[in-house]
Amino acid sequence: ARQGLPEVIYGTGKTAAEIAAIARTLLRHNTGPVLATRVDGDTAAAVLAEVAAAAVPGSTYDASARLLLWRPAAPIGFAVVVAAAGTADQPVAREAAAIAAAVGLTVTTVTDVGVAGLHRLLAEQDRLRAADTVIVVAGMEGALASAIGGLVACPVVAVPTSTGYGAGLEGITALLAMHASCAAGITVVNIDSGFGAAMAAFRLSRVVNRSTT
Amino acid sequence: ARQGLPEVIYGTGKTAAEIAAIARTLLRHNTGPVLATRVDGDTAAAVLAEVAAAAVPGSTYDASARLLLWRPAAPIGFAVVVAAAGTADQPVAREAAAIAAAVGLTVTTVTDVGVAGLHRLLAEQDRLRAADTVIVVAGMEGALASAIGGLVACPVVAVPTSTGYGAGLEGITALLAMHASCAAGITVVNIDSGFGAAMAAFRLSRVVNRSTT
Amino acid sequence: ARQGLPEVIYGTGKTAAEIAAIARTLLRHNTGPVLATRVDGDTAAAVLAEVAAAAVPGSTYDASARLLLWRPAAPIGFAVVVAAAGTADQPVAREAAAIAAAVGLTVTTVTDVGVAGLHRLLAEQDRLRAADTVIVVAGMEGALASAIGGLVACPVVAVPTSTGYGAGLEGITALLAMHASCAAGITVVNIDSGFGAAMAAFRLSRVVNRSTT
Amino acid sequence: ARQGLPEVIYGTGKTAAEIAAIARTLLRHNTGPVLATRVDGDTAAAVLAEVAAAAVPGSTYDASARLLLWRPAAPIGFAVVVAAAGTADQPVAREAAAIAAAVGLTVTTVTDVGVAGLHRLLAEQDRLRAADTVIVVAGMEGALASAIGGLVACPVVAVPTSTGYGAGLEGITALLAMHASCAAGITVVNIDSGFGAAMAAFRLSRVVNRSTT
Amino acid sequence: ARQGLPEVIYGTGKTAAEIAAIARTLLRHNTGPVLATRVDGDTAAAVLAEVAAAAVPGSTYDASARLLLWRPAAPIGFAVVVAAAGTADQPVAREAAAIAAAVGLTVTTVTDVGVAGLHRLLAEQDRLRAADTVIVVAGMEGALASAIGGLVACPVVAVPTSTGYGAGLEGITALLAMHASCAAGITVVNIDSGFGAAMAAFRLSRVVNRSTT
Amino acid sequence: ARQGLPEVIYGTGKTAAEIAAIARTLLRHNTGPVLATRVDGDTAAAVLAEVAAAAVPGSTYDASARLLLWRPAAPIGFAVVVAAAGTADQPVAREAAAIAAAVGLTVTTVTDVGVAGLHRLLAEQDRLRAADTVIVVAGMEGALASAIGGLVACPVVAVPTSTGYGAGLEGITALLAMHASCAAGITVVNIDSGFGAAMAAFRLSRVVNRSTT
Amino acid sequence: ARQGLPEVIYGTGKTAAEIAAIARTLLRHNTGPVLATRVDGDTAAAVLAEVAAAAVPGSTYDASARLLLWRPAAPIGFAVVVAAAGTADQPVAREAAAIAAAVGLTVTTVTDVGVAGLHRLLAEQDRLRAADTVIVVAGMEGALASAIGGLVACPVVAVPTSTGYGAGLEGITALLAMHASCAAGITVVNIDSGFGAAMAAFRLSRVVNRSTT
Amino acid sequence: ARQGLPEVIYGTGKTAAEIAAIARTLLRHNTGPVLATRVDGDTAAAVLAEVAAAAVPGSTYDASARLLLWRPAAPIGFAVVVAAAGTADQPVAREAAAIAAAVGLTVTTVTDVGVAGLHRLLAEQDRLRAADTVIVVAGMEGALASAIGGLVACPVVAVPTSTGYGAGLEGITALLAMHASCAAGITVVNIDSGFGAAMAAFRLSRVVNRSTT
Ligand SMILES: Nc1ncnc2c1ncn2[C@@H]1O[C@H](COP(=O)(O)O)[C@@H](O)[C@H]1O
Ligand SMILES: Nc1ncnc2c1ncn2[C@@H]1O[C@H](COP(=O)(O)O)[C@@H](O)[C@H]1O
Ligand SMILES: Nc1ncnc2c1ncn2[C@@H]1O[C@H](COP(=O)(O)O)[C@@H](O)[C@H]1O
Ligand SMILES: Nc1ncnc2c1ncn2[C@@H]1O[C@H](COP(=O)(O)O)[C@@H](O)[C@H]1O
Ligand SMILES: [Mg+2]
Ligand SMILES: [Mg+2]
Ligand SMILES: [Mg+2]
Ligand SMILES: [Mg+2]
Ligand SMILES: [Mg+2]
Ligand SMILES: [Mg+2]
Ligand SMILES: [Mg+2]
Ligand SMILES: [Mg+2]
Repeated sequence: ARQGLPEVIYGTGKTAAEIAAIARTLLRHNTGPVLATRVDGDTAAAVLAEVAAAAVPGSTYDASARLLLWRPAAPIGFAVVVAAAGTADQPVAREAAAIAAAVGLTVTTVTDVGVAGLHRLLAEQDRLRAADTVIVVAGMEGALASAIGGLVACPVVAVPTSTGYGAGLEGITALLAMHASCAAGITVVNIDSGFGAAMAAFRLSRVVNRSTT
Repeated sequence: ARQGLPEVIYGTGKTAAEIAAIARTLLRHNTGPVLATRVDGDTAAAVLAEVAAAAVPGSTYDASARLLLWRPAAPIGFAVVVAAAGTADQPVAREAAAIAAAVGLTVTTVTDVGVAGLHRLLAEQDRLRAADTVIVVAGMEGALASAIGGLVACPVVAVPTSTGYGAGLEGITALLAMHASCAAGITVVNIDSGFGAAMAAFRLSRVVNRSTT
Repeated sequence: ARQGLPEVIYGTGKTAAEIAAIARTLLRHNTGPVLATRVDGDTAAAVLAEVAAAAVPGSTYDASARLLLWRPAAPIGFAVVVAAAGTADQPVAREAAAIAAAVGLTVTTVTDVGVAGLHRLLAEQDRLRAADTVIVVAGMEGALASAIGGLVACPVVAVPTSTGYGAGLEGITALLAMHASCAAGITVVNIDSGFGAAMAAFRLSRVVNRSTT
Repeated sequence: ARQGLPEVIYGTGKTAAEIAAIARTLLRHNTGPVLATRVDGDTAAAVLAEVAAAAVPGSTYDASARLLLWRPAAPIGFAVVVAAAGTADQPVAREAAAIAAAVGLTVTTVTDVGVAGLHRLLAEQDRLRAADTVIVVAGMEGALASAIGGLVACPVVAVPTSTGYGAGLEGITALLAMHASCAAGITVVNIDSGFGAAMAAFRLSRVVNRSTT
Repeated sequence: ARQGLPEVIYGTGKTAAEIAAIARTLLRHNTGPVLATRVDGDTAAAVLAEVAAAAVPGSTYDASARLLLWRPAAPIGFAVVVAAAGTADQPVAREAAAIAAAVGLTVTTVTDVGVAGLHRLLAEQDRLRAADTVIVVAGMEGALASAIGGLVACPVVAVPTSTGYGAGLEGITALLAMHASCAAGITVVNIDSGFGAAMAAFRLSRVVNRSTT
Repeated sequence: ARQGLPEVIYGTGKTAAEIAAIARTLLRHNTGPVLATRVDGDTAAAVLAEVAAAAVPGSTYDASARLLLWRPAAPIGFAVVVAAAGTADQPVAREAAAIAAAVGLTVTTVTDVGVAGLHRLLAEQDRLRAADTVIVVAGMEGALASAIGGLVACPVVAVPTSTGYGAGLEGITALLAMHASCAAGITVVNIDSGFGAAMAAFRLSRVVNRSTT
Repeated sequence: ARQGLPEVIYGTGKTAAEIAAIARTLLRHNTGPVLATRVDGDTAAAVLAEVAAAAVPGSTYDASARLLLWRPAAPIGFAVVVAAAGTADQPVAREAAAIAAAVGLTVTTVTDVGVAGLHRLLAEQDRLRAADTVIVVAGMEGALASAIGGLVACPVVAVPTSTGYGAGLEGITALLAMHASCAAGITVVNIDSGFGAAMAAFRLSRVVNRSTT
Repeated sequence: ARQGLPEVIYGTGKTAAEIAAIARTLLRHNTGPVLATRVDGDTAAAVLAEVAAAAVPGSTYDASARLLLWRPAAPIGFAVVVAAAGTADQPVAREAAAIAAAVGLTVTTVTDVGVAGLHRLLAEQDRLRAADTVIVVAGMEGALASAIGGLVACPVVAVPTSTGYGAGLEGITALLAMHASCAAGITVVNIDSGFGAAMAAFRLSRVVNRSTT
């Protein structure tokens, strides 16, 4: 890993053979977790077959997160809450949660907390406030990021999603809205990038670790 | 008034003489309220002087709303709440409130209820629920429209504002976000158009009046 | 229903099993209408089979509107006219009409009244003027909303559609044009959102009901 | 004139001295009309003084059209109607009308015929139908082009204007909407380009002239 | 035909049965040409079979133009040149040419005259100058419209096409570029709208006919 | 402060009297730092005069950051490096640095490290790697965020700036580019929002403090 | 070849028969290289079969570059380095490299040198500095162009690619970012246009040849 | 100079004192030319006064190019033609020409060669073909780049300008159109960046020099 981040293979557009080859190399050259994102079920099965042939233990595939994983990290005691606005945001929330867990963070998930139902959101206040970092996954108008940004004082990483239709502009509207948010100090990653949010949370966890040891 | 709507002169780009001339004509040809929007203080003074010379009574100028008004309508008992997210949204909220009042609606105003401070918003729930229509004025990410849309069952008319900077895109982001909102059945008018929202509320009030008489 | 609005399941991206499960829950926990939008024929058949297994009566599927419906509301005497500009706007008009009817509104439909054929539009004036609310469904340049906004004094809810090609920008042009409309007080919902327009009309109907009882 | 079109100087960004110099050259090298567009009053006075010094007769300045003109063409009997939607569209309508007249077309003007007031528009039907070409000047949603395109069978040249605010996007919305128009065979020129529309009409007039002689 | 334009059915999204039904009605209610655009080969065969069953003579299908045609108009002696920049622009050029011919215009075609090969373009000057109207079909940067606008004095109708990739933005770049053109008085229709250009030419031809008879 | 964040007044569009009134209220109701951003020199002098009249000690104005400050927080031992690409990015960098310092963070600044001069950037590696968080301020193409994201493992908060011209699109290009960055886990705030970046860093510092105490 | 550039057929949307016909004509009318770009494997096989039938020797198909080639040019001693940021940029890099080689340039390739891994990029400095021209192929944020522009003094031609998702906007973000680059004098070609970059390099090579002979 | 390029100060937003200070440093630390771009007349006078005080000889200010220059380079025998489409493009053309000359290139200028006047353009063919590089400066639709790209085989660097109005979108249309150009191998720099084009030409000149010595 270049500067201390975990090794993550971007699966889109790669064949099973290509993913397997990269994975084998990474597994050999370092000792930390190795991940491959955006891998569909058939490709995953083929990759696991090939890499297993090379006798690498402890690998799993998480279909809902589309994540292939070898050698997950041990938990380091950093609490991440992944909050998702609606059903359609689940795949991105799953990607964020699975990657964060794979790199050693402790993840809990809060779902169906869109701002059009404030009371359900407020019912989750205590869980949100206990987090070291909240990852907010929301499409459409992305308002959930502002609302949660106002409820907690810890870092908030917002992931706009490409759900919805029409004026949602495939996630561009949510991305811009999250930047224009009236809640101070929330930050934003790329559209649908559960990966980016998990990596941002991992960077945060390292600062805490550094300062406590 | 064409099809029963009040007569409203659009002040932008018109001289005091032009506004005065149109106002005099409108005042002569019908008996309802006459308004001129987006009129600055100097122009307003000049218009009032001219039209007064023509002996027209009952005129006022509201500087915060930039509204010139002659012959306001009598109240018809339709309750509008104008809710504004932040300080910067005040001029548009003022325009909406002043025009709505001028055409006979009963207006109350709720301010500083951005979604980053949910508890202040929730403290206004009862006032919002008592409304026949809520006009939501919000810039930046426009999330307030979604939140209020989830709190009330009456019509919600959202006005995106051009406040903020950068990713707010002069109100385009708020307009798109309000359309992509997860709250069902909220409707949207043009950026900064307090006028449009007030007219939409007026149209609503007429249906109620029709059905009760 | 959260704040008094009907329960509506958004079908896009959900399996028949998921829709059926949500529908069963909603049917059990309240007594009003339950709807599922954007459901294709095969999915609808599967859902109906499953939910029927749970012995829920009175369900129908409207293929042209792509709507699944259980327990339609009784008519409440609020008249909605759905006016559609062209042939290509029919699916969205059907969605608006079917949902509005399902929640208790009285719907009539006016079609093929694009502004390039003004005399056909003017021939419908009386029907339009009798409405409590007009829903205007129009793609391409969206001009029908302005024309109807000038003909009636009741609320006008405009639905831009993604029909057409090139400069229509998948409905963005119609959406922007409707907002820039020269007709005062018309409001707009998201592109292709027959659902949003029907819900907006439902919100209006509730104010009338409230004030008459 | 290159290929038979009149000589027109684009005034924006040029000094009086530069305009005068170009005008003198053009007046010397051909015998037709010479025009300078987008010239403000002060510059016009200075240009007229300078060019007059060179003893060029028959020049005028039209302040409302911001047009400087030398040697207007004799009328060739081609009837253009310039129809403008609203007050704010007047400057562009004036530019179109003045240039068209300067190059020999017979111009009449129809104003305040926005589609939100269809009856005023229909009252002008006969005048519109008598035209050889209609130039439609309209901002905001640009719907007037569609409506007139449906009323007449002659060429319709649409000029989007940058009037209005917010969703009008400085004329981009009207330009796109006019292209997406449901009226067949209308054509469009650049935003605010009264000049472009007048030149398009001039091109049309030449075909008629050619075929009749 | 509404105001004297030919009847044209827009085939996209319509079944053979729907097209046939509309065609039969139009053929019965007037005596001029009837067209259906954007019809693929299979649909066309089915439509022709059905309408022939109703004993309507003289129908043809032009596969390269995707045009179905009944009762073409007799030639009226108005010369249109369709000039296309590149190979990829052919389908749109074919649509323009076939529709123009169907409604009675005399069409010739000039191809492979992009501005990157000026000498081939200049070699066509005489044919271009003999036209009553030139329709320019060009994608990518749309520069051909400017070049031809500078070569001829007759009306020029530009059709941007959605050919190319990347910065061409599916025709938006060509559309904008044609509007920003430095050639005076060229007009533009919607992206890929050979139909719109042919109808614009037809409108022109009627003025000439009117003035010569 | 709502949920533990410092109180910050947004100065744009507010008069000195308005800022002073809000500041006085905030100073009275809590004991932490109070800031006002985007305040020009004249306004600042007037505010300081007024608030001083109310006997509030310890206030300063930082002209380069346009920041008014009362009761700065004591340092909490969290190291922030603000890295700015070019001269034009200085005002935003100054805002970020001044606000971060005001709320108790320890700030150092690295300037003139654009990616077109990699060796100057690499010369700063040790200082960057010692940070708990790096704030990257960069306009134009925003590439500095990617480069630094690859050099350090701590959190990176990127601030796109509106510097440059043409294709920079007032900061939109940098904002989009930072989101599309090939460096994993960097996060982004609004264009020119030194404030947003400082608040994001403050949120981080709180997690560290929490876990160490 | 028109003005001395090689003949290149654009394969997209052409049948094997069409490509073969054009190739045969070009091969007959000149003696230089003939290329066809964006040709898939099946089409290529068919073309080669047909053209071979016409007895043309020396043809090859490069599947990774999707390039068909006849009569490659002899090397002229002009050194091009093609540098690609990531795995996903390979197809475009291959197209650039294969076309450049086909027209006589000497090509070497540098891969996996994204700016998030500066040390790998710096390790290639000597090879980059030995180039007569560097072609930089990079998607996402396009930062590699700026970094290399700062390392070398020779011409840099940047090719934005449509790789990535979300805020990358299919290559538009990289294109705009490369134009806004802080590195002086780099130039840009269309998104994914390995062809355009190779042709730009060929133009450069001709100037060198001209001045040395 | 970093990697062999001349030192150029970007004047926008800098005071005379700041420019003078940077210039003095650069003049002291190297022996090549030093330039400051985008400097208005008053600032230039002040800078020259200050730097002259430091006894630096050979400085000039070119008002039409807004360029301050010290120690121009000796001519290296590389011929650049700057071709500008219209009058409004002159300031950018002047910037390109003056900077290119300052760094040692031999510059000639061709003006008023827009594609709407092809014969004037063709009259310049010989001068264009004699160039080692052509810089094309064009706004509006940017078509001149395509036309010249088809006339010459040497490198063509296109500079889109922000001239024109409406659909020109402040130069974005020209930039996109130049990228979508049908002429092979032309490259593009940022909007209005005469500087970028001159630097690109300088990079080209260095390759020629290297290969000839
Ligand atoms: N889902 C993802 N989205 C964006 N970037 C990713 C994703 N997964 C992995 N990456 C990045 O892609 C890089 C590897 O790209 P590649 O060499 O194409 O596999 C890794 O270093 C990650 O930074
Ligand atoms: N603030 C406003 N925003 C948008 N439209 C307005 C506004 N005020 C008045 N109008 C509309 O402008 C029309 C009058 O325009 P005019 O003839 O230019 O005064 C009225 O019929 C109103 O519909
Ligand atoms: N290719 C086409 N592009 C755009 N509009 C068309 C096209 N073909 C027909 N039309 C228009 O579509 C209208 C008929 O639409 P429809 O009722 O959906 O068949 C006609 O009146 C034409 O104006
Ligand atoms: N007119 C210009 N447009 C764009 N970049 C420029 C211009 N003039 C100078 N530059 C660049 O700006 C850098 C210096 O920026 P600065 O440090 O702000 O003076 C130089 O290295 C040039 O690359
Ligand atoms: Mg959401
Ligand atoms: Mg707001
Ligand atoms: Mg329509
Ligand atoms: Mg208008
Ligand atoms: Mg083309
Ligand atoms: Mg920068
Ligand atoms: Mg890249
Ligand atoms: Mg130009």
